[in-house]
Amino acid sequence: MFVLFGNEKTEPSIRYLTGFTAPDDVAVIVDGDKTTLIVNELEFGRAKEQSKNCDVQCPTSMLGKRGYLSDCIGEYAIRNNHDVVECAYSFPYGLVNELEENFNLNVFVANTAWLAKRRMVKTDDEIAKIAEVQQVTHKAMEAAGELIASATPNASGELVLADGTILTSELVKHKIRMVCIEHNCIDEDTIVAGGIQGVNPHEAGHGPLHANEWIVIDIFPRSLVNGYWGDMTRTFMNGTPSEAQQRQYDIVQQAHDEAIAKVHSGVIASDIHNGVNTLFEENGFYTTYGDDHAEGFFHSTGHGVGLEIHEGPRISRNGDTLESNMVVTIEPGLYYTATGGVRIEDLIVVTDDGARVL
Amino acid sequence: MFVLFGNEKTEPSIRYLTGFTAPDDVAVIVDGDKTTLIVNELEFGRAKEQSKNCDVQCPTSMLGKRGYLSDCIGEYAIRNNHDVVECAYSFPYGLVNELEENFNLNVFVANTAWLAKRRMVKTDDEIAKIAEVQQVTHKAMEAAGELIASATPNASGELVLADGTILTSELVKHKIRMVCIEHNCIDEDTIVAGGIQGVNPHEAGHGPLHANEWIVIDIFPRSLVNGYWGDMTRTFMNGTPSEAQQRQYDIVQQAHDEAIAKVHSGVIASDIHNGVNTLFEENGFYTTYGDDHAEGFFHSTGHGVGLEIHEGPRISRNGDTLESNMVVTIEPGLYYTATGGVRIEDLIVVTDDGARVL
Repeated sequence: MFVLFGNEKTEPSIRYLTGFTAPDDVAVIVDGDKTTLIVNELEFGRAKEQSKNCDVQCPTSMLGKRGYLSDCIGEYAIRNNHDVVECAYSFPYGLVNELEENFNLNVFVANTAWLAKRRMVKTDDEIAKIAEVQQVTHKAMEAAGELIASATPNASGELVLADGTILTSELVKHKIRMVCIEHNCIDEDTIVAGGIQGVNPHEAGHGPLHANEWIVIDIFPRSLVNGYWGDMTRTFMNGTPSEAQQRQYDIVQQAHDEAIAKVHSGVIASDIHNGVNTLFEENGFYTTYGDDHAEGFFHSTGHGVGLEIHEGPRISRNGDTLESNMVVTIEPGLYYTATGGVRIEDLIVVTDDGARVL
Repeated sequence: MFVLFGNEKTEPSIRYLTGFTAPDDVAVIVDGDKTTLIVNELEFGRAKEQSKNCDVQCPTSMLGKRGYLSDCIGEYAIRNNHDVVECAYSFPYGLVNELEENFNLNVFVANTAWLAKRRMVKTDDEIAKIAEVQQVTHKAMEAAGELIASATPNASGELVLADGTILTSELVKHKIRMVCIEHNCIDEDTIVAGGIQGVNPHEAGHGPLHANEWIVIDIFPRSLVNGYWGDMTRTFMNGTPSEAQQRQYDIVQQAHDEAIAKVHSGVIASDIHNGVNTLFEENGFYTTYGDDHAEGFFHSTGHGVGLEIHEGPRISRNGDTLESNMVVTIEPGLYYTATGGVRIEDLIVVTDDGARVL
């Protein structure tokens, strides 16, 4: 028997396997073909209504009295003659101790590749849900682009809106958030990073935006209804790029297009990532790792998206093979203190014939 | 040495101890007076800027090369002559195995009461942050109440807005969400449950709302800026309560007021909870646990609120002692199929002199 423990946020596979959105911790036992969801009494009714393809239990229904979820896991193992419990890497160590001490079970971290692999290859229903979120992401990106385009620079180069307001990263993020929320999605960590801020890929951006600098906008909202994520990055400029900035943008666009053109079922992900690296290097866009920050292209080319914003497969040095119906980002970028950051990201579905951009 | 592992969502103590908001997993080592935050290279710059009262490291800075966070934890233990590592209940079992196998360490689940207790008693800064979120919660509640009051019932008792739209739980939740988002808070799981729906405390509510039924509205938003939560419940009705409904409401209000009046530093939480139970029973409002659902009062009277929506202390059968500057909810409720659900909840600060309602 294999056990997952956690809630919707800490263990997204619980929603994947049972369809149940768990605000509080629950246990899921996968035992051959049978899946059992164990929730507390307060959630019992809702869990029975909402869950799919699983047996739903609570301590009272399993034990005939109030009890802990750990008691239910132990009781399940005893009733089904299991003395070995397999769990995920993230399984709480405290719970391991309880199962070992109270029920004399042996708990091991299992290879969960089967689950990761199942989650990587999306069903048509999952792809439709992700596409829905990505449509919202696209709408929010358009609104952000229009807002930036509508501004004009003042004497010190700051972008100013028609009503005299100075355009800040915060204002653009607010605009993006309102579009997302209007469509029942929440973008908690949108990046709107101009100039030098765009060079630090984990800088979310703050303060006034300026003319003639790259503005990286990375929007990754989660649907509050279906739980799936979208992910899109565009790089804007209000003004005129320098020659170096234009070259930087063009080569990222080229890397993005070439990477997408390479996608089809059966391709090795590292071939795509290495292609991006090679293109950049052959065109003189080098990557350096300093003590404090890196320059060039220092992240992976993409990652899977689903019930987590980052999930398998990775499009990086590692050699995952892409399969039909995987949903991944393609997001090459180049970051230099001198010219700013440029990243272009789309979400695609892998098919036998190539990539379908969502 | 004591180690925490996780991100902002899975391990809120990380933000509490370091001030750092971690989208990806990080490690925090508490070793006597010294706290060390270990992040991946991409987060290193931001972590150094944002964190407080701790030393910030990444694999490259600690090991001189790329590596895993587990390698950094192991390296820290070796350098500081620790062969025992203490961890939280939720510490990943996979990480325990790596530390034991690769670094010959003994990993134990520690009693983390010291941390839970530190988090329970809020600083003035934390109380100010929670009060800010609670103000937003209050604004959203007012907006919801006004919306319900503005409707008039049609022939079949459904509430209808002035423009002819039927008022649904979803519409009220949308209104609430827009108020929250306008103030940089997100309410993911607001409850707007009318009639029989209000009897299931984990039913979020759906479909048309009706006249002459209790509508339970429970709003618990989280600030997207400071990470703290608010929590408030009110029970509305558009129409006229029956005598039984009015008695139900009045006794919940009385239980709420009496419970708040009992709050001061030094009081035993179970005395408050038992007082609510006794008041209900003495007035004939009994609690029964059926196979499928309970009726009466079957949840605790309150819980702590901070960087988690549910944290210590619990105001329940358990005998936690309340201390000055704890922030807790007081939320008695009564739920009957015949009359619907009524819950009244406020967030209060415990002081030496009594409760201060936020």
